[in-house]
Amino acid sequence: MSSAAVSPFSQAQPPPPTPSPLSFSVTSSQPPFLTANLFLRFLTLVLSAATLLSLAATSPTNSTLKKHSTTFWDYSQLVYCFTANILVFVYTLFQLFKGICDIAHRGIFISDKASDYISFILDQLAGYLLVSASSVAVQAIQQMHNGIPLRKAAIVSLCTSFASFVVVAASALLSGYRFCKRIIW
Amino acid sequence: MSSAAVSPFSQAQPPPPTPSPLSFSVTSSQPPFLTANLFLRFLTLVLSAATLLSLAATSPTNSTLKKHSTTFWDYSQLVYCFTANILVFVYTLFQLFKGICDIAHRGIFISDKASDYISFILDQLAGYLLVSASSVAVQAIQQMHNGIPLRKAAIVSLCTSFASFVVVAASALLSGYRFCKRIIW
Repeated sequence: MSSAAVSPFSQAQPPPPTPSPLSFSVTSSQPPFLTANLFLRFLTLVLSAATLLSLAATSPTNSTLKKHSTTFWDYSQLVYCFTANILVFVYTLFQLFKGICDIAHRGIFISDKASDYISFILDQLAGYLLVSASSVAVQAIQQMHNGIPLRKAAIVSLCTSFASFVVVAASALLSGYRFCKRIIW
Repeated sequence: MSSAAVSPFSQAQPPPPTPSPLSFSVTSSQPPFLTANLFLRFLTLVLSAATLLSLAATSPTNSTLKKHSTTFWDYSQLVYCFTANILVFVYTLFQLFKGICDIAHRGIFISDKASDYISFILDQLAGYLLVSASSVAVQAIQQMHNGIPLRKAAIVSLCTSFASFVVVAASALLSGYRFCKRIIW
């Protein structure tokens, strides 16, 4: 009789929610999420470093040469692109360092909650900044003459800057997902 | 005795998950979400229409005038801005129409699932497109002389285009949240 009293009660319980196959837990200790995140950060770092180097390498250090050749400082668009990539480089370095600290289980920096909020906002901003810088760099390339060495460097930096934007956009999706999980639960 | 048999069982049940104060259910029938979404779409529509009108209104229809004055067709950057805003305008019109159909409880268009996926991807793209177009339009304004009427129109269109980007970015956050809820559950 007592088992019959329990049985309808247990049937009345709702079944546990079945998680979607796409969902996975995004706590800091989850290796797949952390690895993907670190990989994307590392890729962004390499690409923005390549952008910075390709622009900076064309600036002659010799003062005699400086007077006769153009550097990227002569083009405000390229200076904007350079500045945007410096900001993204520094931010990515910070995220990479934090990611490595997370893997080493040392939450020395900031709390996970604050980190999720900051990453979400700054990833969005970094994406918009990079796409804006890349669009503007196209204009500078159109203005240049075919012969000058800066043109090739600017084209390389445009490609790496755009690739960097694509990777940052992917990072932004990951951090957006993480942020959503945090505010839903 | 039977109540005592039931009582420990009910205590063994896990408590229902307490939702975060920030979370709210995002089914199609939720008025706050739908209203916010519709309001943002409507604002985007108005802003992109203002961008298009301010650019198009400066193009003289008289063929004699056409030869002596500059139109936005002379600036590739403004043509890009115009095209981007046309795309966003058409997309927003579609979203607005779908939103009104949802409120009228007639899911005639596409399923909610497909709509969430499409909105998420296209909102992201629209945001990036608008920020790119706005950045490029700045260049066109810098190239123009102070006197010509097109300059004022271009400045107005730049402001409305940038405002439109901010609103689309907010829409993208909402649709991203909706998309996340769908893939998490």
